[in-house]
Amino acid sequence: MLEKLKQEVLEANKLLKSDDLIKLTWGNVSGIDRDSGLVVIKPSGVSYDKMQTSDLVVLDLDGNVIEGQLNPSSDTPTHLHLYRTYPEIGGITHTHSLNATAMCQMGQELPCAGTTHADHFYGTVPLARPLTEAEVEDDYELNTGVVIEETFTKLNLKVMEVPAVLLHFHAPFTWGKSAMESFKNAVALESCCEMAIKTLSATGKITEMPKHIQRKHYLRKHGANATYGQKALS
Amino acid sequence: MLEKLKQEVLEANKLLKSDDLIKLTWGNVSGIDRDSGLVVIKPSGVSYDKMQTSDLVVLDLDGNVIEGQLNPSSDTPTHLHLYRTYPEIGGITHTHSLNATAMCQMGQELPCAGTTHADHFYGTVPLARPLTEAEVEDDYELNTGVVIEETFTKLNLKVMEVPAVLLHFHAPFTWGKSAMESFKNAVALESCCEMAIKTLSATGKITEMPKHIQRKHYLRKHGANATYGQKALS
Amino acid sequence: MLEKLKQEVLEANKLLKSDDLIKLTWGNVSGIDRDSGLVVIKPSGVSYDKMQTSDLVVLDLDGNVIEGQLNPSSDTPTHLHLYRTYPEIGGITHTHSLNATAMCQMGQELPCAGTTHADHFYGTVPLARPLTEAEVEDDYELNTGVVIEETFTKLNLKVMEVPAVLLHFHAPFTWGKSAMESFKNAVALESCCEMAIKTLSATGKITEMPKHIQRKHYLRKHGANATYGQKALS
Amino acid sequence: MLEKLKQEVLEANKLLKSDDLIKLTWGNVSGIDRDSGLVVIKPSGVSYDKMQTSDLVVLDLDGNVIEGQLNPSSDTPTHLHLYRTYPEIGGITHTHSLNATAMCQMGQELPCAGTTHADHFYGTVPLARPLTEAEVEDDYELNTGVVIEETFTKLNLKVMEVPAVLLHFHAPFTWGKSAMESFKNAVALESCCEMAIKTLSATGKITEMPKHIQRKHYLRKHGANATYGQKALS
Repeated sequence: MLEKLKQEVLEANKLLKSDDLIKLTWGNVSGIDRDSGLVVIKPSGVSYDKMQTSDLVVLDLDGNVIEGQLNPSSDTPTHLHLYRTYPEIGGITHTHSLNATAMCQMGQELPCAGTTHADHFYGTVPLARPLTEAEVEDDYELNTGVVIEETFTKLNLKVMEVPAVLLHFHAPFTWGKSAMESFKNAVALESCCEMAIKTLSATGKITEMPKHIQRKHYLRKHGANATYGQKALS
Repeated sequence: MLEKLKQEVLEANKLLKSDDLIKLTWGNVSGIDRDSGLVVIKPSGVSYDKMQTSDLVVLDLDGNVIEGQLNPSSDTPTHLHLYRTYPEIGGITHTHSLNATAMCQMGQELPCAGTTHADHFYGTVPLARPLTEAEVEDDYELNTGVVIEETFTKLNLKVMEVPAVLLHFHAPFTWGKSAMESFKNAVALESCCEMAIKTLSATGKITEMPKHIQRKHYLRKHGANATYGQKALS
Repeated sequence: MLEKLKQEVLEANKLLKSDDLIKLTWGNVSGIDRDSGLVVIKPSGVSYDKMQTSDLVVLDLDGNVIEGQLNPSSDTPTHLHLYRTYPEIGGITHTHSLNATAMCQMGQELPCAGTTHADHFYGTVPLARPLTEAEVEDDYELNTGVVIEETFTKLNLKVMEVPAVLLHFHAPFTWGKSAMESFKNAVALESCCEMAIKTLSATGKITEMPKHIQRKHYLRKHGANATYGQKALS
Repeated sequence: MLEKLKQEVLEANKLLKSDDLIKLTWGNVSGIDRDSGLVVIKPSGVSYDKMQTSDLVVLDLDGNVIEGQLNPSSDTPTHLHLYRTYPEIGGITHTHSLNATAMCQMGQELPCAGTTHADHFYGTVPLARPLTEAEVEDDYELNTGVVIEETFTKLNLKVMEVPAVLLHFHAPFTWGKSAMESFKNAVALESCCEMAIKTLSATGKITEMPKHIQRKHYLRKHGANATYGQKALS
């Protein structure tokens, strides 16, 4: 069942470890098959080295387990909320990569300071507010997804133009057209956050790159898709 | 003798090196078998690559060597004091991992700045005071354990809720239900200290995460155990 | 065709990854055969692990593809402009290595703060200005090369004495007598930028090394070539 | 000839690379056989991966090559001056490891801020002044050794108690009873410099560890040798 998708999700999960985005088991990647509406996600508490496609968990968008013996990642309700809300998302990555997570702990959004950022994210990567006590008690993981949605709605951002968010006091989520693309956006976000922290430490401020270069770099990579290509960054 | 425990202690010691928590031979992991009251610990001055279970040293809680040809780690009296004082501890890790050690050198305790911390430590990781000249001259390694105990008693902290300490001018100790769990707490402490140092360097201050999220995250991982679950973080 | 050059270009591209100068596919190395006027460059979007000499693209200096099934790197027009303008250049490396790229984002040139720098670069590595909107719209990659040329002309720098440039808001280019030498200069630039950022973070300023030591160190490595050896650094 | 010493010198040179103390070929280790007065040192410009004992160069203390086809490291005159001046030195390591080199570029000596330092260096690691223009022109590498000697003489330091120096605007040298011990001191120096830079970046100052703990830690490792054991640090 969904063997090709499982293969991609497995590979992306293993890359989290080999590309040094995570320590221990602090991260997970999922992917969705939009035809069947089924999501493939990392099981909870299995080491990346030993993980096989048969360990992955298949769920429907309501969270019912369709296939798999193991419990899915505890962050599954966040993934599902994003898939339900944004039909254009094909894959999601969550890590505690240290620089992006440090930015979350500082409560800093990530402005576009250079072309590395602009190749992946069109404008500032937003910071989502911390959950209230009621939201935490009610359904922590689901409400994490709800607050991401709230953030993008309030700022009028398109999720495929800015495929990343920093969660205040927590850690980043990234997404993309596929599981592998969400992983690549996690790498880009971590690198840009590392440069942002170095820049703040060395100079005390981050300067935004001029808008016309942001536009050029983003469109150079993503311009074939007219839904992005027509946006002006103001 | 205690082959299963030795296997775990050996693996955790080797992970210190492969997960980049130590340079040269600057670290050691031990584990205890509570039924027999025997402790298994790394020998002094053997490289991690070549270490075998037969190199490990078995001692009783009074420090008598029960099995093993090699000298135990010079930090053994600290380990033994913690095992004698806290029967709930099953494993202990000591490293000079660079970020945690730098925090020790700065004389900084580690506040809970995010969920990565809260998943492992319930509240601030304390800083233990430096030993006095008399304590150093009397029995340096034993008194290191005594000062850890003093720190937790004064602050009214439970060792299984905050399984880590930063020793002023020295380095961290972590512990857990098992040797492997103490290793995982060493990884978490090093990551949180790295983020704390990045945060201080970039912004000059560390902001504590709201208590209701600290509680949720800690209990999400540790709530099954009622002895932790009932504490309110005030 | 040009098998020996291809072998060197392939090796230098793979070293970008193994020596940790790049993430994902954010970098490219090229080399030129001055007898035939042909350039060998990395293809776009092929992973470094799997890349073979048969994947490399051969172009003439006007950008016509002479051999190769794949598209050349999107940065090819920048490489070609440098080869056309400076006949002494034999190889070029472009990366988004994190410390050099962070310096670019800060808008900082790199003064010579020590002998590591002086062994590779004779004096300050310059910062090139951002492209204007007209330059970006007209031909972004070509004009990147034009602005590098403008920078060296204005500052009256010789490209073989200072074989590197930091592009404001973008990333570094380095070059050398060969592809492999351009790679080594990329390593040196990244290391010197890392030390510069550490120095700024720790002390708030960078102090230039006295000129007589700059001269000695540069000439110790490059003095056999009389065209460099006679320059006085003022 | 001197096969055992060559084996140790080779291993220490290869560890420079595998333990990430150097980039490219920026480092060298030597060892001396005091009975014959012969020094074994790394050849210039051979990659660490491919280096064999037969590539190593054997010299007498006056710099005459006794065995070996390749040129010795260009830093050889510095090594020889130290061996001639201090008969207790058995091995020497020179690197451009990034944190120690950044400290050199900052012009900062390294105070003893914790036990990691005290286990290897008894008190502050000194900073040697930059060479004058006359010293540079006369004999740069030899005079580097002379300035190290001047530094230790002026400060009345014993080279075996503080087996390291930071050269202003250049890089560190470390030494020890053997080539391997000089390598271990290079690792310790780099780690302590990394912690010093983190500490300065995070807090703006470095606090020295109380003298009684410095003494205890140093003597715990080196006390068997009475020539150190009787010194009071205050």
